[in-house]
Amino acid sequence: MTRVYNFSAGPACLPEWVLKKAQEEMLDAHGSGMSVMEMSHRSSEFQEILDTCKARLRRLMNIPDDYEILFCQGGGTMQFSMVPLNLLKHSADIINTGQWTKKAIMEHKKLGKTQVIASSAEDNFTHIPKIKQEDLTPDSDYVYICENNTIYGTKYKELPPHEGKLLVADLSSCILSERTDVSKYDLIFAGAQKNMGPAGVTVVIIKKDLIGHAKENIPSLLDYKTYADNDSMYNTPPCYAIYMVGLVLQWLEEEIGGLEEMEKLTRKRASLLYDYIDQSKLYSNPVAKEDRSYTNIPFVTGDAELDKKFVKEANEAGLVNLKGHRTVGGMRASLYNAMPMEGVYALIDFMKKFEKENLA
Amino acid sequence: MTRVYNFSAGPACLPEWVLKKAQEEMLDAHGSGMSVMEMSHRSSEFQEILDTCKARLRRLMNIPDDYEILFCQGGGTMQFSMVPLNLLKHSADIINTGQWTKKAIMEHKKLGKTQVIASSAEDNFTHIPKIKQEDLTPDSDYVYICENNTIYGTKYKELPPHEGKLLVADLSSCILSERTDVSKYDLIFAGAQKNMGPAGVTVVIIKKDLIGHAKENIPSLLDYKTYADNDSMYNTPPCYAIYMVGLVLQWLEEEIGGLEEMEKLTRKRASLLYDYIDQSKLYSNPVAKEDRSYTNIPFVTGDAELDKKFVKEANEAGLVNLKGHRTVGGMRASLYNAMPMEGVYALIDFMKKFEKENLA
Repeated sequence: MTRVYNFSAGPACLPEWVLKKAQEEMLDAHGSGMSVMEMSHRSSEFQEILDTCKARLRRLMNIPDDYEILFCQGGGTMQFSMVPLNLLKHSADIINTGQWTKKAIMEHKKLGKTQVIASSAEDNFTHIPKIKQEDLTPDSDYVYICENNTIYGTKYKELPPHEGKLLVADLSSCILSERTDVSKYDLIFAGAQKNMGPAGVTVVIIKKDLIGHAKENIPSLLDYKTYADNDSMYNTPPCYAIYMVGLVLQWLEEEIGGLEEMEKLTRKRASLLYDYIDQSKLYSNPVAKEDRSYTNIPFVTGDAELDKKFVKEANEAGLVNLKGHRTVGGMRASLYNAMPMEGVYALIDFMKKFEKENLA
Repeated sequence: MTRVYNFSAGPACLPEWVLKKAQEEMLDAHGSGMSVMEMSHRSSEFQEILDTCKARLRRLMNIPDDYEILFCQGGGTMQFSMVPLNLLKHSADIINTGQWTKKAIMEHKKLGKTQVIASSAEDNFTHIPKIKQEDLTPDSDYVYICENNTIYGTKYKELPPHEGKLLVADLSSCILSERTDVSKYDLIFAGAQKNMGPAGVTVVIIKKDLIGHAKENIPSLLDYKTYADNDSMYNTPPCYAIYMVGLVLQWLEEEIGGLEEMEKLTRKRASLLYDYIDQSKLYSNPVAKEDRSYTNIPFVTGDAELDKKFVKEANEAGLVNLKGHRTVGGMRASLYNAMPMEGVYALIDFMKKFEKENLA
């Protein structure tokens, strides 16, 4: 077996510790004589897995008691609809920072009044637009942001003003990579497949008093109350994905030592790569320095053919999934929690070698 | 490692062959140097997994070319809403055969005109109501059935008349247990977690000409067209669950030899248990003989305390999840594809021993 360094933007690399544990338990989990995939979701064994997963997430992120943790399906995309179905009474203010807010805007517009109050579209999303309180729409219910933009490599370092409004944030590609003050948000959601586990489960962290006010006559599975009232098991949940998230959280608590430690690793991984890129004569990163993501780092050589050669040769060297998103081109390195520091060093070593060989 | 015989109604037992394969490939699937959970859904490796899975299902079920195969999330419950959002123009005719049609009726009623055209509720769902063509509502778009009723242990042996209407069927607990003439249906759906794989993915088999007629301004993920136009990858699909379904289908093709062979095994498992129950002086099955399920077999001793003792002692003997659903009581043995014949023999042996020890 040769494991590669996998820089995929998501689904993404998982800690080997987690995969080995899942492998060990595949045919007999916790002495049950069965795989977690075979457990009834109504069994005490699975209830224990769910409870432990929720408790670990609450501890790790220091989630206050007045917030509920829900496990949904349908990824971030389903949240683009569930958020307005549950929270939009008058209108929504959205800040457009790329593909994932564009899709959120599209789904919002089907369901209620929606304003794009700021956008960095004209700059190809290379920065986070700064807004002031007076930019908000008087009757809007909430301000909606995508905190880390996977494709464009930007991240909010400070939350936008939102006095008198709720704050809703898509944290899919930065959740658990650093400490988060949950109390500053009203609703956080994140698809698991970047920093929490496999695709197929979405974590929603929502203030309890926002639950129970959904539009009438919507499908039960689009109402947060259905999840809150049934411990996320109104119907069969994606049990194995929840189990995997639980293992990732266990790894974060027991092997890494929590989010303060992970934050140091996240910052170190990003600094190493940005520092190298910034002094390089071949590579550049187009993002405004103050808005740079810690987890998704796009870079280009300025020559599309050379970019292609880079991706191909990196792949042959066991550094895979470095191709940038088609809307941006070039390369992108996603440095999520499970990327070992050795992977970052290996990438930089390869980049140096490639620069030497290809700099005219 | 001691594996148990797991009679759970779902999530349910999986073939050991499948679990062992998944275990082997956990850290390095198909020489990719990564787990399937770590693969980008846009990678050629994952596309191959998805394509192979679809092709196997098409071969195994002999699905005609004018039907599309879609992979959705949200289980059967999400289909209770997606079906009316996509197919209900005037009204829907539903036959009520238990818990899962009751929930389908509830979701339908939020979204459109819905008639319960027959029901076996007054007989505690111990049979399948027989309807005639004239029982259908003149303006209804489709007849909706749950073909196998997991909780009550009933199954349609013949499809209801539906001339001039579409036929929509929930096959969650009988799909792949026998041959199915797909051409007799217009839409089939099934949550994977009973006979196809783990929870977290739902297979929809739909006539192509029914796609593209959904209500306006619904969430993209509730429109079948979104899945059909994007090969079920408009957003990140539940990749690992799809991979596991693919392994189960591989097992069915290569190890079992297809659905004709599986049908023989299904019938044999059921006959063995029904024959024993019917001649027993302790146990009885309440279902009308012609409507008995081949996959879910409820039985009682007639004494709630004795039932409890049975479940407890069976559990100690490694025969687990035999407790009946709370709405029916007693016991239930789910005999899905992955239940080895030895499991059925072990159950009957245990039942004989228990009968001998407890028959007054």
